[in-house]
Amino acid sequence: MNILILGGDGFIGSHFVDQAVALNHNVTVFDRFPYNVSKNLEHQREKIKILTGEFANRDQVAKALEGQDIVYHFISATNPATSWHDPLVEIETNLKQSVQLFSLAVEMGVKKIVFPSSGGAVYGRRCGIINEEKTSLPFNPYGITKLAIEHFLNYFHEYSGIAADIYRIGNAYGPRQPMDTPQGVIAVWIGKILADEEVVVYGDSQTLRDYVYAEDVSYLLTHSLSDFNSSDIYNLGTGRGVSILELLDIFSLMIDKPFKYKICKCRNFDNKSVILDNSKLLSNFPGFKFQKIEDKIKGTWLCVRGRYENKQRKFA
Amino acid sequence: MNILILGGDGFIGSHFVDQAVALNHNVTVFDRFPYNVSKNLEHQREKIKILTGEFANRDQVAKALEGQDIVYHFISATNPATSWHDPLVEIETNLKQSVQLFSLAVEMGVKKIVFPSSGGAVYGRRCGIINEEKTSLPFNPYGITKLAIEHFLNYFHEYSGIAADIYRIGNAYGPRQPMDTPQGVIAVWIGKILADEEVVVYGDSQTLRDYVYAEDVSYLLTHSLSDFNSSDIYNLGTGRGVSILELLDIFSLMIDKPFKYKICKCRNFDNKSVILDNSKLLSNFPGFKFQKIEDKIKGTWLCVRGRYENKQRKFA
Repeated sequence: MNILILGGDGFIGSHFVDQAVALNHNVTVFDRFPYNVSKNLEHQREKIKILTGEFANRDQVAKALEGQDIVYHFISATNPATSWHDPLVEIETNLKQSVQLFSLAVEMGVKKIVFPSSGGAVYGRRCGIINEEKTSLPFNPYGITKLAIEHFLNYFHEYSGIAADIYRIGNAYGPRQPMDTPQGVIAVWIGKILADEEVVVYGDSQTLRDYVYAEDVSYLLTHSLSDFNSSDIYNLGTGRGVSILELLDIFSLMIDKPFKYKICKCRNFDNKSVILDNSKLLSNFPGFKFQKIEDKIKGTWLCVRGRYENKQRKFA
Repeated sequence: MNILILGGDGFIGSHFVDQAVALNHNVTVFDRFPYNVSKNLEHQREKIKILTGEFANRDQVAKALEGQDIVYHFISATNPATSWHDPLVEIETNLKQSVQLFSLAVEMGVKKIVFPSSGGAVYGRRCGIINEEKTSLPFNPYGITKLAIEHFLNYFHEYSGIAADIYRIGNAYGPRQPMDTPQGVIAVWIGKILADEEVVVYGDSQTLRDYVYAEDVSYLLTHSLSDFNSSDIYNLGTGRGVSILELLDIFSLMIDKPFKYKICKCRNFDNKSVILDNSKLLSNFPGFKFQKIEDKIKGTWLCVRGRYENKQRKFA
């Protein structure tokens, strides 16, 4: 099967490349590659086709779509923090360019599009365990745009018959998550600890998140490869809420470097609570067990620290 | 109270101007006015302030917002039919310009924004009587954008505290509805009959719509004037579903001119059924009764025919 992975050099994208290569698919990765192929994809270099381009460039995207059966769209130029003060940036980049992609995919005869949406942002200020049928009332531009992109996929499905799967992913974490954006609290904290800076903890015992390991995310995303004709919306999270203070405890226990922290109030653009009902997706993976955050933080830390130290050496 | 009515020279906008003037508010209307003030507003000319401008023009909109307490935003450049083949036009016009408006309104200290959304489009292919809590899954770009605008209002409310009321309006009809756009089946049919053309009926006995008289709509929209601090989402419809074939019967009975028609299948961008649960809004209007479509089609016909004949004479 010919799979195009947009943003496949990034965090979740590159984990999904690993899955798709392991399943022996023909994988093409479209990304910016500002410094050639990154460490995320280096190990797959010989097994995939690499295309360098800009998501905003219609011709480059159209070329990448040629002959593809299915497209995984991992490109996102923003995060909840950056677009909180600039809602138009969401519309100009993520929304318009995603609609352009879908329109081109229809033109080029692609059979299915897979869109990783945000389980943390599309439901808005809902509490408790949320299933896919709950009314969405997003309040930050990031979540509003993710939801609008979901709806435009629904439109293209109705308009042209192209299939579309949407995964509303919880708080993904794991190796390769960038430390230099304000998204992904675990990577941000690791970055601070490595740089000997204070960790800022936003929230309290009621600030619950559904942390899901990147390898689990990418494995579950393979569900869309099993059927070209189906279209659906799935929550992709563990169904377990971990408070930000519990996360702090896990860090203190698992990370072999002392660090300072301060606790602050939740930021305006943060949800109070995100716990995703995953029963719909998991019904397709009988016996599947999520990896526990208590077991994966240490490995994530070691992996990120290893890369950090390599980089430090390189620039030393 | 200082009220700015954007698009106040249009169909529902001008009916709302009538309500606001009757309640002795200081009314400013911002619209394009391509041929000076239209017949819709002529009778109010001495009682309102007229501002000519383009919604896309940031400076003109900012100027219009000066000193306003509340803004009713009736401007919409599209309809479900026109944007079915061109989803980007929705984003470029309605969505971006509405977000620009809200951002300016916050800057200028406006206290509240009122947005007439679409009860027919935001819920998608739901059936039965729908309340405001039902999951929205819009499938046409028109409805997707209306819903995204609702969500951006929710964002601006959270971001800045500006109040926002949203009305999801059923199929509004009545005097002043334009006959030359594909939106508003009643006006479209009247236009065809006046021009001695065939009426095309899209749908069957299961194609249900919640037809609501423009005067009732504009009256109920005054609810937002009662409290500057509240923000909410309301369905605005009668709660009664009338099938497209019943509508045809009402036309045959009430309109004193014979006409031809043909019955076709629903179009892709049409909803099967729209019936709105109005209990939330009506709890604020004890004793209110909606005008019945059987009683108002004749008056609508006479009024639209009168204008049409006047225009014909003028150009004769």
